[in-house]
Amino acid sequence: MKVKRYKKDDDITYSLGVTVTMEFLLGRPSDVKAVLLHPSFDSKETLDKILKLCRENNIPTEIDAKAFNILSQKENCFVAGVIAKQPQTLRPGNHIVLVNPSNDGNMGTIMRSALGFGFKDIAVITPAADPDDPKTIRASMGARAKVRVQMFGDFKDYRAVFPGNSLYPFMLDGSVMLGNVDIREPFSLIFGNEATGLPAWFSTVGTPVRIDHGHDIDSLNLPIAASIAMYESTKGKFGGMPAEVSS
Amino acid sequence: MKVKRYKKDDDITYSLGVTVTMEFLLGRPSDVKAVLLHPSFDSKETLDKILKLCRENNIPTEIDAKAFNILSQKENCFVAGVIAKQPQTLRPGNHIVLVNPSNDGNMGTIMRSALGFGFKDIAVITPAADPDDPKTIRASMGARAKVRVQMFGDFKDYRAVFPGNSLYPFMLDGSVMLGNVDIREPFSLIFGNEATGLPAWFSTVGTPVRIDHGHDIDSLNLPIAASIAMYESTKGKFGGMPAEVSS
Repeated sequence: MKVKRYKKDDDITYSLGVTVTMEFLLGRPSDVKAVLLHPSFDSKETLDKILKLCRENNIPTEIDAKAFNILSQKENCFVAGVIAKQPQTLRPGNHIVLVNPSNDGNMGTIMRSALGFGFKDIAVITPAADPDDPKTIRASMGARAKVRVQMFGDFKDYRAVFPGNSLYPFMLDGSVMLGNVDIREPFSLIFGNEATGLPAWFSTVGTPVRIDHGHDIDSLNLPIAASIAMYESTKGKFGGMPAEVSS
Repeated sequence: MKVKRYKKDDDITYSLGVTVTMEFLLGRPSDVKAVLLHPSFDSKETLDKILKLCRENNIPTEIDAKAFNILSQKENCFVAGVIAKQPQTLRPGNHIVLVNPSNDGNMGTIMRSALGFGFKDIAVITPAADPDDPKTIRASMGARAKVRVQMFGDFKDYRAVFPGNSLYPFMLDGSVMLGNVDIREPFSLIFGNEATGLPAWFSTVGTPVRIDHGHDIDSLNLPIAASIAMYESTKGKFGGMPAEVSS
């Protein structure tokens, strides 16, 4: 199988590493077109698991050292999946909306948190980083295999499809503090670009929220702000023990 | 001035980029030994600010294109500070404790959040990533200039210096859920390594806390878990408006 360095317009992308590739074998097996193995990969137990999943799903495997030189700069990558990209459509419910995010790694980290806090549908307003770039997928730790991402050319296009969602744009000058805001389902948590945040007109959209922090920093890192918002808006939802207080 | 690629044992390190270097000029001017400027740097307003701060603090400046080839792989770095590393000692109060963190970028991101949430003292238990690596400093967005970091060979050494702090180790199987725990000052929020978490014996230390999330992911990314903990433990401290609820 001939692999080449990923480009945004390609129909396929790559899952780099054991963990990430396993997530695709489990979450989107029909999109895994092949699994590449480095000849020095020597973890028998993991290899057996991968081969079993490939057999069950009729996925060809190939031993190919050269592919890894092309696909990964990291020396510790021994397994890669060849993944068919798919257009995806968001389901109704709670959403994360990323407006013009610019960094692949950040987008992947947000996917990982989103999946952790039960947000499986992410809207991305373009121009934006690429949700299917191998760097995004790697930063997601494979969460990309379990979240849907739909791209929209404009926030209004997203809104037209989901007119009933309560909107919570996160802004440095948001009028309400996270923790004091009553978040009503279904809802959309909306985040702007790493450097520029959300355009000012979002202050007239829904309920603009700010995350309270001191003035020693200008802003929190984007995946961190988004994850704090997801944490707060889903608190108590994951079957934790009933309220308890340390004594 | 002859610059060379940073090594962990060097006495000096580098702040790469305008924002990061400005933070050192403002926060630790006496440790800035020189400021290097790329000949293509053409933002007059920013340059004037930098030159003024350098003049006020008797810091030499130098125009040097070659230095940037050595110091930075990023093409958009036009300003760098040469920074004297300093041994630092934690002050009493609330602390972040990082046990064997392995990634420079993560450590820097944690510094940025820590400064934002008012934690200016960070204990690092070795072996660990380097709090003074230019990658750490860059990821911190300059927060490194305003937080103190002290290295300890063992958690017990840290504990011996601050025996009165309430301890909250963050563990996947922590007995109390963040949000239900009564966090008493002065306190220490304790986080483990990216891949392995905290050693199991921390479950007998203070009040082990977990962050509630679904089972679709194994764990949150380390800077994200740490930032959520900082957010929750300082909620309402930063002069936000009084409790209000969206209508």
